[in-house]
Amino acid sequence: MRIDGKPMRTIWPHADGRSFEVIDQTALPHRFAVLRIDTANAAARAIKDMIVRGAPLIGATAAYGLALAMREDAGDAALAAAYDALLATRPTAVNLRWALDDLRGALAPLPAAQRFAAAWARAAKICDDDVAICRAIGEHGLALIRDIARRKSGRVNVLTHCNAGWLACVDWGTATAPIYLAHDAGIALHVWVDETRPRNQGASLTAYELGQHGVAHTVIVDNAGGHLMQHGEVDLCIVGTDRTTAAGDVCNKIGTYLKALAAKDNGVPFYVALPSTTIDWTIADGLRQIPIEQRAQAEVTRIAGKTADGRIETVQLTPDGSPAANYGFDVTPARLVTGLITERGVCPASTAGLRALFPKAA
Amino acid sequence: MRIDGKPMRTIWPHADGRSFEVIDQTALPHRFAVLRIDTANAAARAIKDMIVRGAPLIGATAAYGLALAMREDAGDAALAAAYDALLATRPTAVNLRWALDDLRGALAPLPAAQRFAAAWARAAKICDDDVAICRAIGEHGLALIRDIARRKSGRVNVLTHCNAGWLACVDWGTATAPIYLAHDAGIALHVWVDETRPRNQGASLTAYELGQHGVAHTVIVDNAGGHLMQHGEVDLCIVGTDRTTAAGDVCNKIGTYLKALAAKDNGVPFYVALPSTTIDWTIADGLRQIPIEQRAQAEVTRIAGKTADGRIETVQLTPDGSPAANYGFDVTPARLVTGLITERGVCPASTAGLRALFPKAA
Repeated sequence: MRIDGKPMRTIWPHADGRSFEVIDQTALPHRFAVLRIDTANAAARAIKDMIVRGAPLIGATAAYGLALAMREDAGDAALAAAYDALLATRPTAVNLRWALDDLRGALAPLPAAQRFAAAWARAAKICDDDVAICRAIGEHGLALIRDIARRKSGRVNVLTHCNAGWLACVDWGTATAPIYLAHDAGIALHVWVDETRPRNQGASLTAYELGQHGVAHTVIVDNAGGHLMQHGEVDLCIVGTDRTTAAGDVCNKIGTYLKALAAKDNGVPFYVALPSTTIDWTIADGLRQIPIEQRAQAEVTRIAGKTADGRIETVQLTPDGSPAANYGFDVTPARLVTGLITERGVCPASTAGLRALFPKAA
Repeated sequence: MRIDGKPMRTIWPHADGRSFEVIDQTALPHRFAVLRIDTANAAARAIKDMIVRGAPLIGATAAYGLALAMREDAGDAALAAAYDALLATRPTAVNLRWALDDLRGALAPLPAAQRFAAAWARAAKICDDDVAICRAIGEHGLALIRDIARRKSGRVNVLTHCNAGWLACVDWGTATAPIYLAHDAGIALHVWVDETRPRNQGASLTAYELGQHGVAHTVIVDNAGGHLMQHGEVDLCIVGTDRTTAAGDVCNKIGTYLKALAAKDNGVPFYVALPSTTIDWTIADGLRQIPIEQRAQAEVTRIAGKTADGRIETVQLTPDGSPAANYGFDVTPARLVTGLITERGVCPASTAGLRALFPKAA
C-alpha cells in the first residue's frame, strides 16, 4: 500500500538487523509516525498499548519481539519467558498465540547460538506469508466486485465496518484487499466507512488508509448503513472477523451483526474476509461459545481528536455519573453471511462450505 | 420531571408576563443553564440554534415566540411576518407548523389589542396540552412495562434511541414517559441508552435526564444493541418518531431501523411512542414518501465534549480530507414495529390499527 505515494508495510526489519520498525497507529489519523523497536519488552509494550493492532500485525510484531528476546538471551528459560510475556499482552488474539507457537516450535530444537538468526528469518517469513494470504483474499474478493461492476452502471458501493485493513495486517488487509485490488484494476468504486464506535477504527484508520491509497470513500456513523441499504446505495458489504466458527458464525467488531441484518433485509450481499487462521475449528455455535470481551467504560464516555489548533485532546461525551458498557465484539450468525472470502477462495458460511476448502484443518 | 431534585419543565413563562425561559440544551450535559427570551427574534434564534429541540418543545417555543411578536406589534402584517420567520427556523418540524397554525387561526379574528394576551394564554395551553398528552402516552406505555415486570424476575431492561425524552417535550417525554411512570411506580427498571451518533442526543440528553430523575441507566454505543438483544439483555425497545405514516411506518433518528431489525430477529417487542400530531395521514409508504434530511458533514467529523479541566472543546475525529455523509433520519417499516403508543392507547402499526384509535383524523 502507499502512504504519501510511497509503498509501505505496517512492519519491517531495520537495516541494522537488530531492530524493527512499525507505524504508530495511536497517532493516526492525525499524525504519521514510525516507531523503532529494539527489545522484546518494547515489542510487548507496542502490542499492549495498541501502537500496533489487528490480529495479523500483532502476530508479526510478537514474532519479531521473540526474535529480539533471542538476541538478548537465547537460552531455554529466556525463550519460555519471552513467549509468556508476549502472549500476555493480548490474551484473546488468536494470531498472537499462533505466531508465538510457530516460532517457539522452530527455535526449541536449535542450539542457542542459531536461535536469533532463525527467529529473525522466521519473523520475516510470517510477514511475507501474511502479505501473500491477504493478496489471495483480495484476488478472490476482486472477482465478486468485478462481477457487480459488470452488472451495474456507475461505481460499485462497498460498505465496511471497523478496520480489517492494511493497518491491521502487514499489507493489503483482509476486508480491504478486494477493494484495493479493484481500485488498482481501474474498477470505479466507492467505500462507505462505518466510523465504528467506540474506538472509531473506521473513521480514523480505514478512512486514513483508503485516502492515502486514493480510494473514494465517505465516512458515516454506524447508524447510517441501514438507511443506505434501504435506498440501494450499498452493492455489497465486506467486513473482517476476529474469530470464525467451524459452522461459519463470525465474531467481529461490535455492530457487525446489525449491518448483516440490514443487508439480509435489503438483499445486499454480506461477505466476510478472513485468513483461515481465524477459523476456530473446535467450536460451531458462536453465540453460545464465544465469550465477548468487555472493555473500559472510558472508551465510550471519552473520545480523542484533533483540536482546531492541532493538539490531540480527549473530551468527555456523557454526563458525570452516567455509567457506560463497552462490549468489544458481537457474533453474526452464519445464516446472515452470504459468503466467506478466504485465501483459498469464496465459500458458503457453513460447515460444509468451510470443509470443502479446508478438508484437513483441525 | 426533576433537575437536582427540583420539579421543572423545559419551558415556562416568566413572572413578568412578557418573557419566557427555556433550558439551554446546547450546554447539556456538562452545564445546566436557563435562557430568558423576550423577543420573537430571540425565540426564532433559540429554535434555529437548537437551544431548544424536539418537536413538541419547538412548537411550544414558537407559540411563545409568536405571542412575543404580538406584544411588539399586533397588526396583521406583523402576525404574518412573525409566522413566516418562526416557521423558517426548522422547516421540516411538523409540530412547529401545527403550533403556529393554531395560534394564527386563533389570533386572526381578534382585534389587535387582544392578540398578545390571547396568544400568551394559548401558548401556555399548548404547553399544558403537551404535558397531558405525554402523560397519557406514559400511562399506556406503563401498562406494557408493568406486564413485563410481572412475568420476569429482576429488573426490566428498556432500550431507547436518541432523546424522545422530557427535554424534547415540555415534560415527561414521549418514549421516556412510560419509563418515568414505571420508575415512579416503584417498578425495578434499567435503561440502555444508545449514544445516538452523530449528535449524541442519547449520551448527552437522555442519560442526563434519566440520571437527574434517578433512573438506572447505562450508555452504550449504537453498535451494541444487537448484541444485548441476542443475549436476552433487552426486554423491550421504546423509541420516538418524528413522522409516522398512516400505515404505521416510522421516521425517527438515523439508526432506529437497525434496532428494529435486531428486535425482530430476537423476538424483542419494539414500540414507538408518539403524540398523534406526528401522524401524517396523507402518506402511507414511509420509505418512498418521506425525504430524509442530509445535515452538515461536521456533525460526523467533529464532536464536542468536556476536557479534563472542564472546558468544552470540539475535536476532529476523521483524517483531513476524508468526506462524511450525514443522514438525519431513517424509516422503520411498520412490519418491524410491535405497536404504537399514542395518547389514546396502544395500537398495531397499521392503517387499521391507527384508524381504530383515530377514526376521524385526516
